[in-house]
Amino acid sequence: MDLKDLLNHTSEWLKGSGPHSDIVISSRIRLARNLSDASFPHWAGKKQGEDTLGRIREGFSRVDYLKKTAFLKLTNMDSIDKQFLVERHLMSLDHAQKTNSKAVVIDNEEVISIMVNEEDHIRMQVMQSGFNLYEAWNIINKIDDAIAKELSFGYMPDWGYLTACPTNAGTGMRGSVMLHLPALVMSRAIDRVLAAIAKLSFTTRGLYGEGTQATGNFFQISNQISLGPSEDEIIESINGLIRQIIEQENQARDVLFSKKSPLLEDRINRSLGVLKSARIINSQETTELLSMVRLGCDLGMVKDIDQRRINELFIITQPAHLQKIEGKKLSSEERDIKRAQIIRDKLNIQ
Amino acid sequence: MDLKDLLNHTSEWLKGSGPHSDIVISSRIRLARNLSDASFPHWAGKKQGEDTLGRIREGFSRVDYLKKTAFLKLTNMDSIDKQFLVERHLMSLDHAQKTNSKAVVIDNEEVISIMVNEEDHIRMQVMQSGFNLYEAWNIINKIDDAIAKELSFGYMPDWGYLTACPTNAGTGMRGSVMLHLPALVMSRAIDRVLAAIAKLSFTTRGLYGEGTQATGNFFQISNQISLGPSEDEIIESINGLIRQIIEQENQARDVLFSKKSPLLEDRINRSLGVLKSARIINSQETTELLSMVRLGCDLGMVKDIDQRRINELFIITQPAHLQKIEGKKLSSEERDIKRAQIIRDKLNIQ
Repeated sequence: MDLKDLLNHTSEWLKGSGPHSDIVISSRIRLARNLSDASFPHWAGKKQGEDTLGRIREGFSRVDYLKKTAFLKLTNMDSIDKQFLVERHLMSLDHAQKTNSKAVVIDNEEVISIMVNEEDHIRMQVMQSGFNLYEAWNIINKIDDAIAKELSFGYMPDWGYLTACPTNAGTGMRGSVMLHLPALVMSRAIDRVLAAIAKLSFTTRGLYGEGTQATGNFFQISNQISLGPSEDEIIESINGLIRQIIEQENQARDVLFSKKSPLLEDRINRSLGVLKSARIINSQETTELLSMVRLGCDLGMVKDIDQRRINELFIITQPAHLQKIEGKKLSSEERDIKRAQIIRDKLNIQ
Repeated sequence: MDLKDLLNHTSEWLKGSGPHSDIVISSRIRLARNLSDASFPHWAGKKQGEDTLGRIREGFSRVDYLKKTAFLKLTNMDSIDKQFLVERHLMSLDHAQKTNSKAVVIDNEEVISIMVNEEDHIRMQVMQSGFNLYEAWNIINKIDDAIAKELSFGYMPDWGYLTACPTNAGTGMRGSVMLHLPALVMSRAIDRVLAAIAKLSFTTRGLYGEGTQATGNFFQISNQISLGPSEDEIIESINGLIRQIIEQENQARDVLFSKKSPLLEDRINRSLGVLKSARIINSQETTELLSMVRLGCDLGMVKDIDQRRINELFIITQPAHLQKIEGKKLSSEERDIKRAQIIRDKLNIQ
């Protein structure tokens, strides 16, 4: 697999399809699994790490569901490619930074990705566009069962799956949903919503997961508890919460829109105007302005721009993507200029 | 004369023609004159004020140069019309605020305007586009001579013309030049230039004269001393100063442009992008953004917009102009919306 091919592909998580895709960008299920007879990655020495990596690779090769995936060892990968995969949400920032005896498995459609020797031996994820956790669960559940026939997972009847960090033990599952909540942010109701989420044992993160800030009104919400409830119960509890947030965002959008607020129209149109004309623009401003234009598309205020083009811009304007497009390393200043150029090219054609 | 007719007319001061019109917006000569046998306006009672007004009107009616002018009494004028004339630089803010026994005389071309019973009985001004004080002086000198044949001015051989405020006595003349100095502002050299001007007995003001701040990189520079030197000497001293400032602004523009600075290109294009897309915009932001676009036209960075259209926008986006265009009183919020609409209409047609 040539990573460059992904450049012309819209990631599953940015397709803009699926249920409630105006508010829910994507749904993701992640499962943590470990081999029953090998040390967790951070305890394993180099030899055991390589051994585990080889055994997993060999096991995966016998799994039908993984036939169309590529097994990419991180030691062979340059830093831009690694960042590129992080930007596409195919692996964690942590995985990209410590690359010893590690690999990532991805499929062409960018639905499946599996990190090998991250915190756990196996961290598999399945992504679906829109509000679609059950579909993601259906897919990952089959892959998990198929892998379990080839590799023996650490599992105890009372505790469930064993994981490097006990907070992931039990189901080993985390469900997360990426939401675009501009109306709740603009109406200043977001702090109340986030406070309520925190009380309910869910975690809110930014666009790039753990440790990242919410920019561009994007919020990633996931379960904190994986031990106790079943997989279905975890998904149902996330779904219940997300349904409420969708309802609140929709109400906030109705209020914004019914007011026919010139302030909102002004902000959306200025955002588009700046994107169409800037010659230098950084990531954060880009994300914030694109967020406003996306809202404008959702509300029917921006008519002549395909929402898919906006979604695509969120991803291709990221630093490693710009460098993959340009085919070379770019300084921060060069990226800001290249980013502005790509945005103008994409938005000024009708 | 219907003031509405002026709406479709580009004022002399914004025609964008004349020498050095990329930097010098307009040149203006003002003469202060008083009848020899009437109290100065602020000493005159109502009866004498009206009497002076009548005598001046009668005298003007016999002056050929004023045949195509309208004599407009301010008591009959509504507040939007008065503000409209201030915005077009045809009378002072002070004249618009105290309207007893006052009038303003203007011609269709907006080259000549004469305030009657402002601080002095007669304050005549002639405006020319670009750097053209001598031409303004030639025109106003003839008008002054012609009026002097009909009305007897207060004049003493040793002191020259008598004026209500001694700082205007002597020639009664003030020459002023409106400059657009974005490059000196951007390169932070402007403070040094303004400090030098102040030491040389010149005054710097903003777009609307006395008491206004410099916005949009516009600076109005005029002589402080009218007693002592002759009219020609005053003009020559202003011209010498202005030539130096033009030189410095041109050097600053060369530096900005030779750097092919993406920052400058970014700022100019963003300014145009915001103007083309905003739905709400206030006067100050408008002036500042138009200033950047004007610089872009001067530097050849903005190609598809006629500079005359930019000049026109400076004037028609002012509060009273918007209300004249709309034909009714508008609140500040309504004006900001109307202003944005007019700007979009003017800039989005090619």
